[in-house]
Amino acid sequence: MGNTFGHLFRITTYGESHGGVVGVVIDGCPPLLEISAAEIQVELDRRRPGQSEVATPRNELDLCEIMSGVFQGKTTGTPINIQVKNKDARSRDYSQMEQAYRPSHADATYDAKYGIRDPFGGGRSSARETIGRVAAGAIAKKILQIANNIEVIGYVKRIHDLEATVDSNTVTMAEVESNIVRCPDSICADQMKAKIKAMIAQGDSIGGVVECVVRNMPKGLGMPVFDRLEADIAKGVMSLPATKGFEIGSGFAGTLMTGSEHNDEFYTDANGEIRTRTNRSGGTQGGISNGEHIIIRVAFKPTATIRKEQNTVTTAGEETTLSAKGRHDPCVLPRAVPMVEAMVALVLCDHLLRYYAQCKVLPTV
Amino acid sequence: MGNTFGHLFRITTYGESHGGVVGVVIDGCPPLLEISAAEIQVELDRRRPGQSEVATPRNELDLCEIMSGVFQGKTTGTPINIQVKNKDARSRDYSQMEQAYRPSHADATYDAKYGIRDPFGGGRSSARETIGRVAAGAIAKKILQIANNIEVIGYVKRIHDLEATVDSNTVTMAEVESNIVRCPDSICADQMKAKIKAMIAQGDSIGGVVECVVRNMPKGLGMPVFDRLEADIAKGVMSLPATKGFEIGSGFAGTLMTGSEHNDEFYTDANGEIRTRTNRSGGTQGGISNGEHIIIRVAFKPTATIRKEQNTVTTAGEETTLSAKGRHDPCVLPRAVPMVEAMVALVLCDHLLRYYAQCKVLPTV
Amino acid sequence: MGNTFGHLFRITTYGESHGGVVGVVIDGCPPLLEISAAEIQVELDRRRPGQSEVATPRNELDLCEIMSGVFQGKTTGTPINIQVKNKDARSRDYSQMEQAYRPSHADATYDAKYGIRDPFGGGRSSARETIGRVAAGAIAKKILQIANNIEVIGYVKRIHDLEATVDSNTVTMAEVESNIVRCPDSICADQMKAKIKAMIAQGDSIGGVVECVVRNMPKGLGMPVFDRLEADIAKGVMSLPATKGFEIGSGFAGTLMTGSEHNDEFYTDANGEIRTRTNRSGGTQGGISNGEHIIIRVAFKPTATIRKEQNTVTTAGEETTLSAKGRHDPCVLPRAVPMVEAMVALVLCDHLLRYYAQCKVLPTV
Amino acid sequence: MGNTFGHLFRITTYGESHGGVVGVVIDGCPPLLEISAAEIQVELDRRRPGQSEVATPRNELDLCEIMSGVFQGKTTGTPINIQVKNKDARSRDYSQMEQAYRPSHADATYDAKYGIRDPFGGGRSSARETIGRVAAGAIAKKILQIANNIEVIGYVKRIHDLEATVDSNTVTMAEVESNIVRCPDSICADQMKAKIKAMIAQGDSIGGVVECVVRNMPKGLGMPVFDRLEADIAKGVMSLPATKGFEIGSGFAGTLMTGSEHNDEFYTDANGEIRTRTNRSGGTQGGISNGEHIIIRVAFKPTATIRKEQNTVTTAGEETTLSAKGRHDPCVLPRAVPMVEAMVALVLCDHLLRYYAQCKVLPTV
Repeated sequence: MGNTFGHLFRITTYGESHGGVVGVVIDGCPPLLEISAAEIQVELDRRRPGQSEVATPRNELDLCEIMSGVFQGKTTGTPINIQVKNKDARSRDYSQMEQAYRPSHADATYDAKYGIRDPFGGGRSSARETIGRVAAGAIAKKILQIANNIEVIGYVKRIHDLEATVDSNTVTMAEVESNIVRCPDSICADQMKAKIKAMIAQGDSIGGVVECVVRNMPKGLGMPVFDRLEADIAKGVMSLPATKGFEIGSGFAGTLMTGSEHNDEFYTDANGEIRTRTNRSGGTQGGISNGEHIIIRVAFKPTATIRKEQNTVTTAGEETTLSAKGRHDPCVLPRAVPMVEAMVALVLCDHLLRYYAQCKVLPTV
Repeated sequence: MGNTFGHLFRITTYGESHGGVVGVVIDGCPPLLEISAAEIQVELDRRRPGQSEVATPRNELDLCEIMSGVFQGKTTGTPINIQVKNKDARSRDYSQMEQAYRPSHADATYDAKYGIRDPFGGGRSSARETIGRVAAGAIAKKILQIANNIEVIGYVKRIHDLEATVDSNTVTMAEVESNIVRCPDSICADQMKAKIKAMIAQGDSIGGVVECVVRNMPKGLGMPVFDRLEADIAKGVMSLPATKGFEIGSGFAGTLMTGSEHNDEFYTDANGEIRTRTNRSGGTQGGISNGEHIIIRVAFKPTATIRKEQNTVTTAGEETTLSAKGRHDPCVLPRAVPMVEAMVALVLCDHLLRYYAQCKVLPTV
Repeated sequence: MGNTFGHLFRITTYGESHGGVVGVVIDGCPPLLEISAAEIQVELDRRRPGQSEVATPRNELDLCEIMSGVFQGKTTGTPINIQVKNKDARSRDYSQMEQAYRPSHADATYDAKYGIRDPFGGGRSSARETIGRVAAGAIAKKILQIANNIEVIGYVKRIHDLEATVDSNTVTMAEVESNIVRCPDSICADQMKAKIKAMIAQGDSIGGVVECVVRNMPKGLGMPVFDRLEADIAKGVMSLPATKGFEIGSGFAGTLMTGSEHNDEFYTDANGEIRTRTNRSGGTQGGISNGEHIIIRVAFKPTATIRKEQNTVTTAGEETTLSAKGRHDPCVLPRAVPMVEAMVALVLCDHLLRYYAQCKVLPTV
Repeated sequence: MGNTFGHLFRITTYGESHGGVVGVVIDGCPPLLEISAAEIQVELDRRRPGQSEVATPRNELDLCEIMSGVFQGKTTGTPINIQVKNKDARSRDYSQMEQAYRPSHADATYDAKYGIRDPFGGGRSSARETIGRVAAGAIAKKILQIANNIEVIGYVKRIHDLEATVDSNTVTMAEVESNIVRCPDSICADQMKAKIKAMIAQGDSIGGVVECVVRNMPKGLGMPVFDRLEADIAKGVMSLPATKGFEIGSGFAGTLMTGSEHNDEFYTDANGEIRTRTNRSGGTQGGISNGEHIIIRVAFKPTATIRKEQNTVTTAGEETTLSAKGRHDPCVLPRAVPMVEAMVALVLCDHLLRYYAQCKVLPTV
């Protein structure tokens, strides 16, 4: 339970960190969509380890294969299975981790819940699980693009106390990808890079905030009550490893405004479209998209795995210390950008399908 | 679609603001639980309008009736339908709202999505919908209490820029209920009350932050991947009206720490239980509860309905102005407390059932 | 759990036989559908007790009220709650049933599962639960009719050993409703009526087979693997009380043919449409509708409640005898017709929405 | 959509007939279950082609690999991915089928729904899809066996007009497996074998009925309303390829009895257990298991693929004839036995978990 996401455009991920494969089964994909492993690989390359000097030096190519659901380059409407082979390196680095609970990791809770756990590379709790999400997200993005030219663009907004200046109305994917930190503010990006390198030197880690904007949103996606668009997006991104917070629009800062300051006034634009002059709502009202940009932010904690020695206990409960020997990210933010985009795209694609189901089935009178 | 919440302990709400009824159907409730309308009413009274001078003066008693699923005071395992009759006051106050889109309300998005909308009191987008959630939450709370003495306690942590000092380890429901703001810091509560009254005078509104702590959590609730406990809680609370942000544990502030500062070191307590010395994780690791307190925060925007005149458009797109005439909350926070508690309790109860399903069915070797 | 049916057009029923209400919440209904309580009542009148001399003499009008989700005669896209008040006659007839397990009834299994049970009129296991299904089915039928002029027509095909001759290609609702047995073969209907009356005289009961045809089916509804159209229909009708079997197309009799006798050959009709010359498949191939009529049959056992004395045990397990005193149907078939139609319509409506979700969202190249 | 089955013990199958892999992801499996590929292979060998002279001569070993979710021989509670590599023989036999719609196959409906279809070996509509079900069913069976020593035994009850005599109370798996037809009545099995061979000679095919009994059923599995145990089993088996009908207990024949003949009288057995003297109900009452054997029957049509020439149309709608050249089963019944068992076991396992969720979470008073 818990390994499936989405109501109509529905993904199920599987696999652990080491040995075998990780992957995803996508059910409910519209047929006749042109899709290739190469297109999916573009997104996977954005999340793969070893991609830059600010990511973990563990070098894995994470090449994906489409195992089913695509015929002669087009989706057939049947389940799409995409998988990536794991490197089989079970022996190294992790013998210690099998014995000692890594602070702020899932080792202890898995043991408490299941009484068993694959310890290699974190097993199922490894961030490798997100490969399946990013692969599925690549397909969701393409559907959104075809359906309404919808753009989903994430970027690093803040690392530790370094906050970038980014105009969410104009930022481009090229700007995001122009540096290894994935921060479109190039001056800030350099500072961020320096700070991450300092963390590597200290054997410590840092966190930050990813912001994600969705442009060309149609009106009407999302549901009134429990499946509000922002609630489903919140669930999607809060299901990513290392997330501690979520905001939409004005977020926590909006609680410092009064209603008259915060409300988004309506006007009618030159095309006769009802719009809002401001976007403190962040693109939804009453859980339903209003056609303005969706804008969200996600807090990622500093990476739990650090070289610095920490106090912890063994699986038997005895006190010990732990200094991580594995090669890990000093800061997950640059690699988290495609993950956030993927979760946002998956939610929007699911709601796009749900919109057609409920609102297009009867002829408009 | 979108009106059902939960996987096993599953609720479906129904009803609009005016005329008829609002209510909830709870499916999957364990049998033989003693429950009465009076117990549920206690929670409904905490959310009802007209309860104090800082809430909307609209006085509705919101008396609930259990319509099915309970026999001789005990649940039977069949669907529990709880409903509250609406006052039927369709004529007053809302004629204007039928014509003009209220800024930062759901009127315009409902029209865009469905092409139709019950305008009276916001129809389905009314906060009256949360009556069903709070009623169901009362039952969920009781199950949690019986199962493991689990306590779910929410309180107002901040209103506008007034932040309370509250010890989440010791705060009691009595302290929360000791004042009409539901802020256990009584000095701050008085300041909050004054600020809300100032807003009433100005015809404006304010927002803030509700914090919620869960104590006596068992280990092992939550799922590794998509249905992480924090992801499901995030979805639950972000589905409440007026929410703009969610945090667990260290939240956004945690992104300003390094890994060595942020990690929760493990130790073994006097009872041989593996614990963490700090709780920046907020009670979950890898999406699964670790037995520490769950601690979350939810941002509520300032109430969208205000007396101050605002620019907006009519349903036909023509420019107009609007000054709300209805009686509305100048600040939703005091009434939001039981709503947040309800959503948290519903998620935990659902995961408690899921835990039994997966982890108790086979005999432990 | 178990009280919700459907994936997109989703119903949740609630309520027990006596006291309070029975009803249904419909979630996912397309907006702007004109619907009235009167239209729904037409279907409810076809299932209500006391409607004729071959039904239970218990006379209940079962008048429905639409409690939410409809505004000015049109659906709003929000949950539609339809309810029927129960007569409150808890005292009579059932004192014995509270003590003795009625053979082939759900009393004993409810006690075994839940440890508690509302005994009045069978509580949740009462056929009154089907009121909600039939009410929701009325709406589903209307959607099917508007979307593609789809007709769902059920009728009594056999009672005990009396089998009617009915042409499923031409049978009309008027023919079905032309007699109280709901058998369009009027000669056979008279024999059936006589046989049912004989059963009443003997204090015994009989069963039979309802057949249901769906005409003007579009191609493409249904899913390849688990959610095959026939699988979902099977689940729907087998969830009705007293059902013991299900067939589609050739059914069990088809197993007596060879492949060359059984296969439905394709041809192209005058409109250039690919059709099959025969319809042993019953309207689906590979789980997906092929545009031919859907034709199914459902076996209903003889009513379990009879006046004849039967051996049974008390709730304490002691031997006793039981002669039902309540007023019950000697044969459920006439009243089962609208129930079967409702379940078939609900499944088709759900799959119609699912079809739009998956196959209409991308522009056809 | 439609490729996932089960609520808590939930499987998702993927893959087409040729090229790549077919497989299944099982989510929700209890942890610490000992399971090996070899155990799963036992069931897969019962369904594999080429296993005997009455099955298709296509010889495929269908060796399975566990790709995730099992660590050191035990389930970890995370998704179990089991896959079987397809032989890659895309070139042969199927060129004709790409052009001409095979009568009573899914080719035409897939094209109508999706506008695209993998034609090799039937693509997704191939019976190879059932590999994933049978593999998952092997695990479900083991859980049922450990939990309550539950036995799920299927067998061929009838082929064409040859009906076997089998005592469902005593039949053993060894008897079922004692001959290649999987009919425990060895005399009838020989006749069946001869009849199948005659069909091979004629280039034709036959169908029949699989019966399945479940023994050592606990009381209390199943849900009152939509998720009745028999409804979920009906859906499960009717989702298998080539099925046309389903019965439980007395089935269609039961409609020829009166209520007094049909009812199952209760008595108390020597262990103080409330039992029924007969089992026309087939093991459930009111949708919930009563502790008696579950007994069901499933009708399988004659195999659609035959060597005999048939009239059909091309994908362009032009008339043509078709004589199947591929190697196909003249009668699916022997290989369908493990498929039926798998679907029954999956439903029961899911309901076992659901039972624990709802009925074991609160302490019994």
